[in-house]
Amino acid sequence: MLFFTQCFGAVLDLIHLRFQHYKAKRVFSAAGQLVCVVNPTHSLKYAPTRCAAAQASTEQGILSPCHHHEAVHDPQLVPCTCPLFSCPWEGHLEVVVSHLRQTHRINILQGAEIVFLATDMHLPAPTDWIIMHSCLGHQFLLVLRKQEKYEGHPQFFATMMLIGTPTQADNFTYRLELNRNQRRLKWEATPRSILECVDSVISDGDCLVLNTSLAQLFSDNGSLAIGIAITTSKVHSPEAEM
Amino acid sequence: MLFFTQCFGAVLDLIHLRFQHYKAKRVFSAAGQLVCVVNPTHSLKYAPTRCAAAQASTEQGILSPCHHHEAVHDPQLVPCTCPLFSCPWEGHLEVVVSHLRQTHRINILQGAEIVFLATDMHLPAPTDWIIMHSCLGHQFLLVLRKQEKYEGHPQFFATMMLIGTPTQADNFTYRLELNRNQRRLKWEATPRSILECVDSVISDGDCLVLNTSLAQLFSDNGSLAIGIAITTSKVHSPEAEM
Repeated sequence: MLFFTQCFGAVLDLIHLRFQHYKAKRVFSAAGQLVCVVNPTHSLKYAPTRCAAAQASTEQGILSPCHHHEAVHDPQLVPCTCPLFSCPWEGHLEVVVSHLRQTHRINILQGAEIVFLATDMHLPAPTDWIIMHSCLGHQFLLVLRKQEKYEGHPQFFATMMLIGTPTQADNFTYRLELNRNQRRLKWEATPRSILECVDSVISDGDCLVLNTSLAQLFSDNGSLAIGIAITTSKVHSPEAEM
Repeated sequence: MLFFTQCFGAVLDLIHLRFQHYKAKRVFSAAGQLVCVVNPTHSLKYAPTRCAAAQASTEQGILSPCHHHEAVHDPQLVPCTCPLFSCPWEGHLEVVVSHLRQTHRINILQGAEIVFLATDMHLPAPTDWIIMHSCLGHQFLLVLRKQEKYEGHPQFFATMMLIGTPTQADNFTYRLELNRNQRRLKWEATPRSILECVDSVISDGDCLVLNTSLAQLFSDNGSLAIGIAITTSKVHSPEAEM
């Protein structure tokens, strides 16, 4: 009897997920955009010392390994930059994507414009929603994080990192867009390199920041849809465009 | 001797203000937009009970007076909605603009697109920056407020109110845009009616919200430039446009 109840529960969950996915597709299909339903993952561990080391080496313009407990290493190696885990892996920049896919099961999407549909926004902080985005010959990592910077007041932080060097990252502009209930919020910036640390980008607040109330206004039935677009930014001149 | 020192100080202040104004004009003159330098005003007093009453009456769709200490009044009168002061004035909606100009010395600017340049962003919370904006046959009130929602963590909140009824407000969309250091943040929404309360809009977080770190990234020499545009919104269809 218990077995049948569990089976029934699993079938209901599948129907719910399928419905959520189709609903998202229906909402955004008018624009012909690919919708990706992204489920949350609770952050297991943050490693700020590793990040600090990574950032220091990035600022010096070199690809150096960042494990603080190692004194000598191959300067061509980079650590695993997946923000979810304190992962001991390190490898060449070219194999970071396959590591993130294979070890951390992060999906990769193709296309210049996609919709990132983060589910279960009500889950307690810290929670991350992560996806990779393949576009313009490069791979990008989108991170949405729910975190309590001020105790008892969770906020949402969204940023995009290039799986490449800071010099390569300077060639792109990414846009995150929320659009619902006659409100629209757009954030445009140059992506950071994955050699910099997502934790420091978020703690600096140099990303799209949403209070809980605003996140609720933009979300539908517990899911937040973020439109993502990436362009090359060589002709970008912010002051003149305002 | 003291007199001459004071005179010299005043002349220096004037030169500084003039320089700030010209600098702002130079930055934005390429787009042919009007730049308005807005100096801060420390909030003297907030009157939440008055606001609550105003909102209740607005939700009922009537223009009622909102002074909580009065039981009977002319339903054609509205209270002074200037967020800076707990002002005892009340009058018809048509004379709110002249009251705000004459009593509270709030400037009014003409044009569909203007740049609001708020100076002295470093001043402690609570601080307000306010201007009126005349456009498309209506007047709007732009409020930028620095406030500590979480103790020790001031944030900036920006919103636009129509000096008119909620029904009239539904016909417009306003856009606030920050653009600096290869970052761009845009907020678009329907303006609220001045019959609703700016305090509740800000406490609900239903406006453009900036953390201090983000405000610093967008500001130049202590001043924050916000591009403002107002359009009619009859054809606005947010879901389809995403």
